[in-house]
Amino acid sequence: MTAPLRGLLSCDPAVATSGVTLLADALRAQAVPVTETQWQPPLDGTLEPLTRVMADRRRSEANALALQRMTSSGAELVDVRPASEALGLERGTFLHAGPPIEWDRASGPLRGALVGAMLFEGMAQTPEAAEAVLARGGVVLEPCHHRGGVGPMAGVVSPSMWVYELRDEVYGHTSWCSLNEGLGRVLRYGAFGPAVIERLHWMSSVLGPLLQQAVRSGGPFDIKALVAQMLQMGDEGHNRNRAGSLLLLRDLLPPLIAADGTAGDIAQVVRFCGANEHFFLNVGMPACKLSTLAAEGIPGSSVVTTMARNGTDFGIRTAGTGDRWFTGPANTPEGLFLGDFGPGDANPDIGDSAITETAGIGGFAMAAAPAIVRFVGGDVRQALRATQTMYEITVGEHTAYQVPILEFRGTPTGIDVAAVARTGILPQINTGMAGRVAGTGQVGAGLVTPPVQCFTAALQALAAAAEG
Amino acid sequence: MTAPLRGLLSCDPAVATSGVTLLADALRAQAVPVTETQWQPPLDGTLEPLTRVMADRRRSEANALALQRMTSSGAELVDVRPASEALGLERGTFLHAGPPIEWDRASGPLRGALVGAMLFEGMAQTPEAAEAVLARGGVVLEPCHHRGGVGPMAGVVSPSMWVYELRDEVYGHTSWCSLNEGLGRVLRYGAFGPAVIERLHWMSSVLGPLLQQAVRSGGPFDIKALVAQMLQMGDEGHNRNRAGSLLLLRDLLPPLIAADGTAGDIAQVVRFCGANEHFFLNVGMPACKLSTLAAEGIPGSSVVTTMARNGTDFGIRTAGTGDRWFTGPANTPEGLFLGDFGPGDANPDIGDSAITETAGIGGFAMAAAPAIVRFVGGDVRQALRATQTMYEITVGEHTAYQVPILEFRGTPTGIDVAAVARTGILPQINTGMAGRVAGTGQVGAGLVTPPVQCFTAALQALAAAAEG
Repeated sequence: MTAPLRGLLSCDPAVATSGVTLLADALRAQAVPVTETQWQPPLDGTLEPLTRVMADRRRSEANALALQRMTSSGAELVDVRPASEALGLERGTFLHAGPPIEWDRASGPLRGALVGAMLFEGMAQTPEAAEAVLARGGVVLEPCHHRGGVGPMAGVVSPSMWVYELRDEVYGHTSWCSLNEGLGRVLRYGAFGPAVIERLHWMSSVLGPLLQQAVRSGGPFDIKALVAQMLQMGDEGHNRNRAGSLLLLRDLLPPLIAADGTAGDIAQVVRFCGANEHFFLNVGMPACKLSTLAAEGIPGSSVVTTMARNGTDFGIRTAGTGDRWFTGPANTPEGLFLGDFGPGDANPDIGDSAITETAGIGGFAMAAAPAIVRFVGGDVRQALRATQTMYEITVGEHTAYQVPILEFRGTPTGIDVAAVARTGILPQINTGMAGRVAGTGQVGAGLVTPPVQCFTAALQALAAAAEG
Repeated sequence: MTAPLRGLLSCDPAVATSGVTLLADALRAQAVPVTETQWQPPLDGTLEPLTRVMADRRRSEANALALQRMTSSGAELVDVRPASEALGLERGTFLHAGPPIEWDRASGPLRGALVGAMLFEGMAQTPEAAEAVLARGGVVLEPCHHRGGVGPMAGVVSPSMWVYELRDEVYGHTSWCSLNEGLGRVLRYGAFGPAVIERLHWMSSVLGPLLQQAVRSGGPFDIKALVAQMLQMGDEGHNRNRAGSLLLLRDLLPPLIAADGTAGDIAQVVRFCGANEHFFLNVGMPACKLSTLAAEGIPGSSVVTTMARNGTDFGIRTAGTGDRWFTGPANTPEGLFLGDFGPGDANPDIGDSAITETAGIGGFAMAAAPAIVRFVGGDVRQALRATQTMYEITVGEHTAYQVPILEFRGTPTGIDVAAVARTGILPQINTGMAGRVAGTGQVGAGLVTPPVQCFTAALQALAAAAEG
């Protein structure tokens, strides 16, 4: 009897377990030491498509290429222009965050921002009149992503709004994003009161033109380099942009103060930008978009190229499946609330800002920004663990974006749909929270994950296209 | 036989050891598990004075008071003025870093800076002529600390140089520091070439007056609040001041661009300050000085109120021993070198910048600034350990300065001479390295500790004044 067991029972057993904890618990109750591995079974119902995707002979090389392109792409701020010029955006077309959606399914903050854009463009005189036009389908709604751009929160862009224009000279792409309005009651969080509209007019008549002069005379500015620096200065680039905003301000100021404008206007622009801790976000996001644009259209790659939310649906796209969206109902973030707001006030997840996580920063770089837990909740260990866990579902490490506290390890980059399905680990996103009632504004900031459906649906599509 | 041993040998022994590792090594060789404590014997020859100081009935309360004052003091930037005005500094008197010293014992960088100051003040036409005057004692040398101020590296201040003036309204103290010249070949590192002197003239005629206007119209500026913020942004405030410099720039810019001056001068000042990653250091140091000034003159307190180096001697002063200096030969920093420079080029430790460590930041806050290891050498674990070790020799934690990665623990603050003597752990200082030959400039950055003599001598003085 002993020979087949090879002495297994002649010494103390060494037990390693995986999956459900029943066996480990039972052994521990008998004082047997157990090493538990973190292995979990794949997501429900994914075994068959997962096997096909993992066996796709193109996958390994395709994913390596996606990562290589994402990390080697450039991102320079080259211009500031009205959306009508930069994108050829036509009167009557409004862009928005996330996958495609129509008015009847739009959430409060998206509706509020669309009403505000109607008022700002002079297409309606009252919120009620604006709503009536929107409700009868009197305007065209289109995702920012369909035009190569990104918008934070509601992400509503109308032709008269000014946008940052960023350029990737390595792969020849252009991206853009609206100008940041500051915090609190602002259009992107769904507010549309008179102060919001007045600020938008000031941004189009004063802020935009002065920033344009500064960028045209002082630029181009290397935004990728600033992202690399801000990660060494306690920012993660999604919900914490303090250092990035100061770095951008430092670059813009010398040409800005030499711009052709009144001293009063220039001083107001300096104060407006200097007072905004998220000033950087609106150049960081299109920099991330350029990174993911570089990875689009690689057959066989299971790397995620878009994660975006419209406040109702969460949508993803992958390098191997082109322009097709895979959507599921957006989750509601959990975190910390401003003032008297509470969980009941929060809208489901909204905005294109998850482009940061898609490109390897934001929630994926939380270890670089331990102080962020004061804004989004949790403790410092969770911030470290968030980044460390994301290595499980990404193809590799960013070559330019590093986390000092992890001995300068590159951030986890290139979310692999197959790895998400195999481990059940969902991407960690940290985000602002909009009030669910149109007109409210920001109510807090917190953490959220995409719905699992996005990944199972994308996996099915990748499996259908797999080459054995 | 078993009763007296209380069963000690009837189970596996649990052994804890301390001091030299001989016993632990021997037990480990016999496969006996050993827990080593980090206890070390007190510094040589300190047992008797240490006992008297530890038994001083005033000590516990006096040290608690010193810490309370250090952490509750304020620091506001209130003015920028010539040293002749701000300090009443007389022509023919030069201030310098560290404890008192005369020309014949002065190191290369201090000599170089003094020569440069003579040229700048027009008191000599050539370096040789300046040296002749200095060598025959033709000028008065006095420590910055004797006038309530601080100077980085050589710390040489002459009457025509402009200084930042900082104010602690809580305890009614004033401190000051010279304006930062930037990096490389600069006076504070002992360089005195034509470019150095020309820059000093520009600083006195353009930079100083414009900063004065900005501070008088936009200030006072809360520097203590900026130190607290920079520690959340990857700075430690001695050798890494990137975020602090940007934060200070952000505060100064709106009043600066509205100042009465030519557009060209203002643009040059913005570029000069924006290009300097240590722009903040010269307001951070006097902010730390105000913190330690608040703790001076507390009988029975063994808390260090000054650590300063003149390039030859390292000197400390304590809360319980008044203005008396306790000195020893300055060590030479170890670290990373610029360009072709190497260890043989480095001067021994120099500058008043160790005021940062004295006040609980700098080397004591390295855990907040893991990226600093790229400048001073070592790895991230060492940066974390540096801060954690300093808790062993400090009275408590700073209430305003926190380290996010240590779950927002306050920085170790208030170096206790008795704790240094008892543990043998010396304060960790990170610092710039000056070339030892006059005129060279900066050669690198690294880590250094004070000579042990400073602490044993201070301990003897505290013991002599102890009240049983």
